[in-house]
Amino acid sequence: MLGYLESLPLLDHHCHGVLGRDVGRAEFEALLTEADTVPPGVSLFETQVGFALRRWCPPVLGLDAHAAPDDYLARRAELGAAEVNRRLLEAAGLAALCVDTGFAPEAILDPVELGRLAGAPAHEVVRLEAVAEEVAAGGGDAARFAADVRARIDARPAGVVGAKSIAAYRAGLELEGARPSAAELASAAGRLMRQKEPRVCDEVLHRYLVWCAVDAGLPVQFHVGYGDADADLRRGDPLLLAGLLRAMDPVPALLLHNYPFHRNAGYLAQVLPNVYVDAGLATHNLGHRAPALIAELLELAPFGKVLYSSDAFGLAELYYLGAVLFRRGLAAFLGDGVADGAWTSADAERVAGMVASANARRVYGI
Amino acid sequence: MLGYLESLPLLDHHCHGVLGRDVGRAEFEALLTEADTVPPGVSLFETQVGFALRRWCPPVLGLDAHAAPDDYLARRAELGAAEVNRRLLEAAGLAALCVDTGFAPEAILDPVELGRLAGAPAHEVVRLEAVAEEVAAGGGDAARFAADVRARIDARPAGVVGAKSIAAYRAGLELEGARPSAAELASAAGRLMRQKEPRVCDEVLHRYLVWCAVDAGLPVQFHVGYGDADADLRRGDPLLLAGLLRAMDPVPALLLHNYPFHRNAGYLAQVLPNVYVDAGLATHNLGHRAPALIAELLELAPFGKVLYSSDAFGLAELYYLGAVLFRRGLAAFLGDGVADGAWTSADAERVAGMVASANARRVYGI
Amino acid sequence: MLGYLESLPLLDHHCHGVLGRDVGRAEFEALLTEADTVPPGVSLFETQVGFALRRWCPPVLGLDAHAAPDDYLARRAELGAAEVNRRLLEAAGLAALCVDTGFAPEAILDPVELGRLAGAPAHEVVRLEAVAEEVAAGGGDAARFAADVRARIDARPAGVVGAKSIAAYRAGLELEGARPSAAELASAAGRLMRQKEPRVCDEVLHRYLVWCAVDAGLPVQFHVGYGDADADLRRGDPLLLAGLLRAMDPVPALLLHNYPFHRNAGYLAQVLPNVYVDAGLATHNLGHRAPALIAELLELAPFGKVLYSSDAFGLAELYYLGAVLFRRGLAAFLGDGVADGAWTSADAERVAGMVASANARRVYGI
Repeated sequence: MLGYLESLPLLDHHCHGVLGRDVGRAEFEALLTEADTVPPGVSLFETQVGFALRRWCPPVLGLDAHAAPDDYLARRAELGAAEVNRRLLEAAGLAALCVDTGFAPEAILDPVELGRLAGAPAHEVVRLEAVAEEVAAGGGDAARFAADVRARIDARPAGVVGAKSIAAYRAGLELEGARPSAAELASAAGRLMRQKEPRVCDEVLHRYLVWCAVDAGLPVQFHVGYGDADADLRRGDPLLLAGLLRAMDPVPALLLHNYPFHRNAGYLAQVLPNVYVDAGLATHNLGHRAPALIAELLELAPFGKVLYSSDAFGLAELYYLGAVLFRRGLAAFLGDGVADGAWTSADAERVAGMVASANARRVYGI
Repeated sequence: MLGYLESLPLLDHHCHGVLGRDVGRAEFEALLTEADTVPPGVSLFETQVGFALRRWCPPVLGLDAHAAPDDYLARRAELGAAEVNRRLLEAAGLAALCVDTGFAPEAILDPVELGRLAGAPAHEVVRLEAVAEEVAAGGGDAARFAADVRARIDARPAGVVGAKSIAAYRAGLELEGARPSAAELASAAGRLMRQKEPRVCDEVLHRYLVWCAVDAGLPVQFHVGYGDADADLRRGDPLLLAGLLRAMDPVPALLLHNYPFHRNAGYLAQVLPNVYVDAGLATHNLGHRAPALIAELLELAPFGKVLYSSDAFGLAELYYLGAVLFRRGLAAFLGDGVADGAWTSADAERVAGMVASANARRVYGI
Repeated sequence: MLGYLESLPLLDHHCHGVLGRDVGRAEFEALLTEADTVPPGVSLFETQVGFALRRWCPPVLGLDAHAAPDDYLARRAELGAAEVNRRLLEAAGLAALCVDTGFAPEAILDPVELGRLAGAPAHEVVRLEAVAEEVAAGGGDAARFAADVRARIDARPAGVVGAKSIAAYRAGLELEGARPSAAELASAAGRLMRQKEPRVCDEVLHRYLVWCAVDAGLPVQFHVGYGDADADLRRGDPLLLAGLLRAMDPVPALLLHNYPFHRNAGYLAQVLPNVYVDAGLATHNLGHRAPALIAELLELAPFGKVLYSSDAFGLAELYYLGAVLFRRGLAAFLGDGVADGAWTSADAERVAGMVASANARRVYGI
């Protein structure tokens, strides 16, 4: 199965921009995991993702597998960011990318440049909270806030194929199903616009933003589960979102990452018609354990509801690692089933094609 | 181990009735999983249970394993429901069945007919909420409701071996331990009886029904975890039920299904003397992954506290798949242990016998 | 890898005292798991830990592996507690022990005796709630309670290397991050001191005790997840503790046991710099399944953040089983990675050394 998976380009339906400049070891380690810092005596290379990186990435840069971190970083610096990015993104073997542009500090390349490096078309995913924060930061009238936000989403550029909600990082996923009332919205907008640096963290606003995307017919990606240190993981359980997921049917909802709630996500993908799931971010962070994650995600989720994403940000290594580890994990899952007689090779190849790109093409209309 | 397990009849301690008539593809798919609908482009045959069905059921109907869905359904129609039911239920190799008769729309065969098809005695499990709803629908006096419900449960037919609570689907499993007061009951009964079509969804009533069963000495089955699309899975965590489980000791409590909370259920089975667990419904839905589920359930649960059930409903395939997958999963678990030296063959066979039927016979007095 | 692990002494960073006298079968079974009682027909030897005990412990006492429980207990009685303790603790191969002395009924040996049996230095861990309860039971002035508690912790004996909180068993892990105010403390102290037998079960007091330890620079162990029948496991999820964990940085927080929340604990170990994790108690209770637990814990937790503990109490078998099963589980995890090319043998041995003792030595300054 692995050979077949390696022949299939993956549609990475959720990633971020890659960093266009060189980085030192501290910055590299910081970009490698979701940790903010580590204490003396602990290295973020001594993790599943660290070992996976040392196994898979050095050969792409012309070193032996398992190169020491300092040797790898020296070689990386020698080649320079442009060449490193080109090699690793090309090696990822992507069919297309959907790029969340909502978090893009300096030196992050835009989707066009990212797509050029990957040799694949790059589509855009609009981050809903960023739209609201831009509108709020633009000043103006709180009474017009809701309409202005909706107008911006409706007037999105042609390359936008989906929307992304980061409610899980802010107010949490316990969003009601119903559209907020005008009064709720006016009150929430007022609170937001009185902030010096407007930051959406309000159940009403997150929910309104999702409804704007739904009304525009945009598939909505939700950050779920595992993420950076600031998130309250308890609020990131996708079961909290069930009411809104039901209410937004038939517009697709895409539950991203999901670890350690991936079994809950798989359940939702089975029982709710418009729910899709992936294992982005966790796949490369779990490294050698990624096959276990993928197998657990595929317990209840119908195979027509599972997508690939890397959730890579910053380091070109993460686009490549996500792809390598996902291909290997899915190949192990499908190949074990063939060996055990659970399904035929033809069935396994059909499922591989669905998960690699066909499901994503159908959901996003790509 | 698999040969040994295949020689052991299973006591299916929780299932529903089988459909006595033929079904088309749409209805068949709807009965196959807990999904209400699927969007265009997604097939419920492209799931773990779908592949498991295509692997195991076609040979019972005289086709090759892995037959295409349409070929399988054509053969099914050709044989007719009566013959299909007979073949698959006989192939399940059951020692006895305990049938929840609380949800039985038209064309669902009754326990006697089901038992005849399976060649095994079929006992009855009374669904507690259905009793209350019948009493409420019968009109009468709210002041007499509690006594009428209790009288019905006390006057159950001789074949009733247990009771079933579906609180998890309604008010959730966060039920208090104490018996409700007369005032609480009168108030809850009044609310129920004022409904046009009485539907129990009230913490007080669910709890009262459990206590009626406990007082009648009936083992109580609780739906836990995974179930249909209407359930709020957050409220189905068995840890929510710990207070009532403690309070009802020594009457047995049987936690059904449990996925994805099966490790929580195993913990309760270890620390609370009257708690038993199974992996029904999830076993056939997880298909090729059922062995992982069974192994996780058996982490903390004492082997004397684990039972077999299919939770099959409607399709004869599900009684058979539950039995095949459970036998294989348990055999893999026990056989790996033997191969690794964790326990002896004699130990493994003793445990197999306990789980296959002896534990259930002891709990229900069958 | 197993040979290498067997050559490494383990630092058991969290255990309790061992029982110095002989025990009968009923008491032995009661000490084997976290169950209070079992119903007729169920044996606690028919569990993962029961089978693990019968596999590993009889040879240490001169019997064949898989001896029957009664034969094992007869041999145990024949040798006597002193010899049994000496053999099993020596066989555990420990580098050092950190002993929680907070629960030590009669006949429990003290750390010095335990260390002598194990042939390794035994350090002490002070149980915070026990300190507070002693102060409260001593009578005196509620106004002085907070200062008295702090003074006791500051004046701890030289051998104390850490503190332990059992908030999870009492008020639960949902502790706020901020230090309690003097008014909150005075009020909580008053409530505690009015109890006949003071028992800390108050969010303010648990939190204050943690801050006393933090201010004294003591690493703080938290009971997390799986434990005895009285605990409300819902309140034992380590995600509930995230605020306090953040606030106490850079003083180390050690999340103990963690099952079934070990993936949540691994997440916290990655994203919060001062958080460390282990799999004590669950390792021996899961027996043959311990490798699965260890592999799941090592998904997100950096390898520099994972420690060994047994959480053994009472039975010398549990110190030995914890060590045997942890060595084997970690060896399987690391060895599979070597076989699969995920990391080199040298990497695996370095990680083994970190987890076996180096991480604990760094955290506790042992």
